[in-house]
Amino acid sequence: MFEGKTLGTPIAILVRNKDQRSQDYREMATTYRPSHADATYDAKYGIRNWQGGGRSSARETIGRVAAGAIAKKILREIAGVEIISYVKRIKDLEGVIDPNTVTLEEVESNIVRCPDRECADRMVDLIEQVRNQGDSIGGVVECVARGVPRGLGDPVFDKLEADLAKAVMSLPATKGFEIGSGFAGTLMTGSEHNDEFYADNGEIRTVTNRSGGVQGGISNGENILIRIAFKPTATIRKEQKTVTDSGEEVTLAAKGRHDPCVLPRAVPMVEAMVALVLCDHLLRQRGQCGAVNE
Amino acid sequence: MFEGKTLGTPIAILVRNKDQRSQDYREMATTYRPSHADATYDAKYGIRNWQGGGRSSARETIGRVAAGAIAKKILREIAGVEIISYVKRIKDLEGVIDPNTVTLEEVESNIVRCPDRECADRMVDLIEQVRNQGDSIGGVVECVARGVPRGLGDPVFDKLEADLAKAVMSLPATKGFEIGSGFAGTLMTGSEHNDEFYADNGEIRTVTNRSGGVQGGISNGENILIRIAFKPTATIRKEQKTVTDSGEEVTLAAKGRHDPCVLPRAVPMVEAMVALVLCDHLLRQRGQCGAVNE
Amino acid sequence: MFEGKTLGTPIAILVRNKDQRSQDYREMATTYRPSHADATYDAKYGIRNWQGGGRSSARETIGRVAAGAIAKKILREIAGVEIISYVKRIKDLEGVIDPNTVTLEEVESNIVRCPDRECADRMVDLIEQVRNQGDSIGGVVECVARGVPRGLGDPVFDKLEADLAKAVMSLPATKGFEIGSGFAGTLMTGSEHNDEFYADNGEIRTVTNRSGGVQGGISNGENILIRIAFKPTATIRKEQKTVTDSGEEVTLAAKGRHDPCVLPRAVPMVEAMVALVLCDHLLRQRGQCGAVNE
Amino acid sequence: MFEGKTLGTPIAILVRNKDQRSQDYREMATTYRPSHADATYDAKYGIRNWQGGGRSSARETIGRVAAGAIAKKILREIAGVEIISYVKRIKDLEGVIDPNTVTLEEVESNIVRCPDRECADRMVDLIEQVRNQGDSIGGVVECVARGVPRGLGDPVFDKLEADLAKAVMSLPATKGFEIGSGFAGTLMTGSEHNDEFYADNGEIRTVTNRSGGVQGGISNGENILIRIAFKPTATIRKEQKTVTDSGEEVTLAAKGRHDPCVLPRAVPMVEAMVALVLCDHLLRQRGQCGAVNE
Repeated sequence: MFEGKTLGTPIAILVRNKDQRSQDYREMATTYRPSHADATYDAKYGIRNWQGGGRSSARETIGRVAAGAIAKKILREIAGVEIISYVKRIKDLEGVIDPNTVTLEEVESNIVRCPDRECADRMVDLIEQVRNQGDSIGGVVECVARGVPRGLGDPVFDKLEADLAKAVMSLPATKGFEIGSGFAGTLMTGSEHNDEFYADNGEIRTVTNRSGGVQGGISNGENILIRIAFKPTATIRKEQKTVTDSGEEVTLAAKGRHDPCVLPRAVPMVEAMVALVLCDHLLRQRGQCGAVNE
Repeated sequence: MFEGKTLGTPIAILVRNKDQRSQDYREMATTYRPSHADATYDAKYGIRNWQGGGRSSARETIGRVAAGAIAKKILREIAGVEIISYVKRIKDLEGVIDPNTVTLEEVESNIVRCPDRECADRMVDLIEQVRNQGDSIGGVVECVARGVPRGLGDPVFDKLEADLAKAVMSLPATKGFEIGSGFAGTLMTGSEHNDEFYADNGEIRTVTNRSGGVQGGISNGENILIRIAFKPTATIRKEQKTVTDSGEEVTLAAKGRHDPCVLPRAVPMVEAMVALVLCDHLLRQRGQCGAVNE
Repeated sequence: MFEGKTLGTPIAILVRNKDQRSQDYREMATTYRPSHADATYDAKYGIRNWQGGGRSSARETIGRVAAGAIAKKILREIAGVEIISYVKRIKDLEGVIDPNTVTLEEVESNIVRCPDRECADRMVDLIEQVRNQGDSIGGVVECVARGVPRGLGDPVFDKLEADLAKAVMSLPATKGFEIGSGFAGTLMTGSEHNDEFYADNGEIRTVTNRSGGVQGGISNGENILIRIAFKPTATIRKEQKTVTDSGEEVTLAAKGRHDPCVLPRAVPMVEAMVALVLCDHLLRQRGQCGAVNE
Repeated sequence: MFEGKTLGTPIAILVRNKDQRSQDYREMATTYRPSHADATYDAKYGIRNWQGGGRSSARETIGRVAAGAIAKKILREIAGVEIISYVKRIKDLEGVIDPNTVTLEEVESNIVRCPDRECADRMVDLIEQVRNQGDSIGGVVECVARGVPRGLGDPVFDKLEADLAKAVMSLPATKGFEIGSGFAGTLMTGSEHNDEFYADNGEIRTVTNRSGGVQGGISNGENILIRIAFKPTATIRKEQKTVTDSGEEVTLAAKGRHDPCVLPRAVPMVEAMVALVLCDHLLRQRGQCGAVNE
């Protein structure tokens, strides 16, 4: 997923590139990158891999994405669930996207995975500009799960929103999680915020979806909608003040290949984690309450 | 915690009040409250307690707060950790509070548990006004854990921020979670956002704390700082459109005692959940890496 | 379960009895009973309850038996499973019992819960004789689960026999576990031991049941049959050599009410643990593979 | 572990052997081996691998043995624990072995891994004779853990003997588990069975070790001693009655390479599972009670 462009590259070249890359990381063997896991890993384990392929690399998520692909298939075939994730905002550039109708094709139609094409173009320009400055930027990924059956989730500790929050906050670089109205919902009154019920051919539906598809920890049949904040990448080429592992104060300007914006790559990770949580709760629901209706 | 004022009340009176309260809830036996767990519980279990003391009531959290008290004692005595939570914002009224110095006495000095006294007064007025309108409001609780040792948390799934997110998102009425810079951090560049390191008498510290005390899933010794969004209370006296459990469209205006703002009561819940997560990771750290240094 | 005869006793008498009992246990405050949990609890926790109602008392199992009652009901109603446990052997007195036909009424027809009436009489005499000598005896409890659907259990770590072994070996005083042919099966050749298959109206059945209803960790539809070894009670009135918690070598002759044989009381505990394991795997099976056939 | 002799074999030969082996298994594609996991896997999953390398093959345990090697190293270096497992009995041939002094060299000195050399010779003869008859045999593996610190294990569900039982009963072909006196202990009286305490230079020790190193679920510092019953191998060359997956009654005489006795190969598996359980409880003990003393 992360190394897509090198697929098909002869092994000899890969090895040479790897040597080159390892050299780029050499300074990091002793110098802690600000806001990176370097220092905390050393504090906890007394050892860490600084060559770029260590356990704090987002490469770790490849196994999650693989498992998520199976979870998505189970969800689709057993319960008709569809999960789509996309870049909602990069820094202050926010796309206009309807989560109820967005398609995978729209998401994959451009390199930043933002289905609002015009906004996507501006995002690409912004990332290019930030890259040239040796800096980095973050943003917000949104994810919608459509067709989720009613009843998934537990009423106390394993509330559906709690498990979704843990799942996505276990991805690298995440700083925040929202479901439905999120933080903005705290500016409304209850009468404005509540999702009124109506009867739709015998089925109970809500007019609005500020709950984000979950009420009291349990899915209500509406679309599940979450947003995740990803911070700007920690490793940048700009010079920063930091310390070495022996406590010496130095400056660091990272060399090597560092992505100035992880958002487009985070999209499939978010999708995978949401799929794993929903699939798990689907199986628990079958265990407790019998077959899930489609 | 929730019934503090009735402590010492003769049992006969409590029972009478309880009968009165149950009557107030009668309409809810068949009518779903918008944005409440009523409908999802019915969908999942086919049964629910509508008298106000059911499993979706925040009364459920009493066991968490009791366990949290023990966790806080362990954290304090073994590792010198101190956890303080408070109301940061109610609707659009936001207090000015320094998480590095705030004290429990300041938090408990007023009924809304906001340590900014002047803002607290305005919050009380706002809640009173909303109560008179039969409406409700939400807001943001902030929680700081000071003196947390370096090294707590796991590098992949059980990242410290992931477990904190799950813990607090399992509380009723939560819609969002942030650690450190949170969603606001996504508007900064990496060079602005990164926490530069410096050496403080041989100890590695950060100048800023946008990481919120956690880097790469592991605590870095700085204060852990999180914020949680609580939506406005679902049950309100204002008339709302809804449906009954047989699918009939009706209106509902809740009777009985319903708190127009849960924020002050949520403060000890957040504190308890943070304490349980930190205590758990402290014990895991001792198991994996031996005694935790003080 | 353990205090059945005192149900209905005025509270004052219970309290007096309790005081008397606590006095009987006083010597044990400092003196470790041989083969009891006294010494290991002190080694692990530095504190223990020596008054007879501590955490190493079999009284702890009351919650398991209560939960087991619910599990048995779920198993019976959803899948038609019936679980019956009984005393198979006390010391060298072994009952002749057919697990395929034994009934709860036969088990409960006598005080030692051995459905072989004649053997039960001899067991009662033996227990009485051992009690008079201030000594204790152990034996074997057998448990059969009939009507268990095919397919319960996992293929690797959570094999059905593994979970059953853990469940019953977590009961106090257990020293051994067998399923099907058990240790005796190791004296046979494969051609003698293997359960040949035959077709019974389209259903695959086995002629013998040396597998004990489980093959490769998964139930095969035959009766599940396990046996558990319970050691003789550790606390006896006969004088024994031991040490105090300060390392002084002394002798101890226990006072107070101590059961010379726990076997009859262990019967419902075993039944409960088996029910909990089977119910858990039934729910997992529904989660993974959909509705369980009856 | 299982394929030791083919190490170094050219790949071409391995592939040819593999093709040959797959052909030997062809009949088993539709015909269930008696007492094998064939039928239960089909019942549960509707699919199974019949070529000999499927999930019910003991090859699966290779990952356990690898992990156990790390666990053994941690146990040895942190707590000085030593774990030795060996073949105690094959069919009715039982070795005379002192678990307190047996060495790894003695175990590995012969091909059946029975440290009683004279008995080992007779075991080899018996296995050879059974192989020629196209039959199989089982037996008992014993395992001792020496130098285990006091205090490992939990008092209720995760008793040390319970976790050991689950761990070894999750190995293929196991039918029984004993700790200390096991089933034989049920033939003794309490005064005979109890392990009297004595003081050994301020340390509390037991004269006998019928408890098998665990009392009340918690290790007492004596050697942990367990025995596991392994049934005769299910797959044999002798003709047996069975059915096909379409319910037709047939006979089956297995072709291919089938070990007539798994006991020698089970020795490292048992050692690994015991190491994993003890290492896990060592880490839990450090988490709960701080550093473990040596």
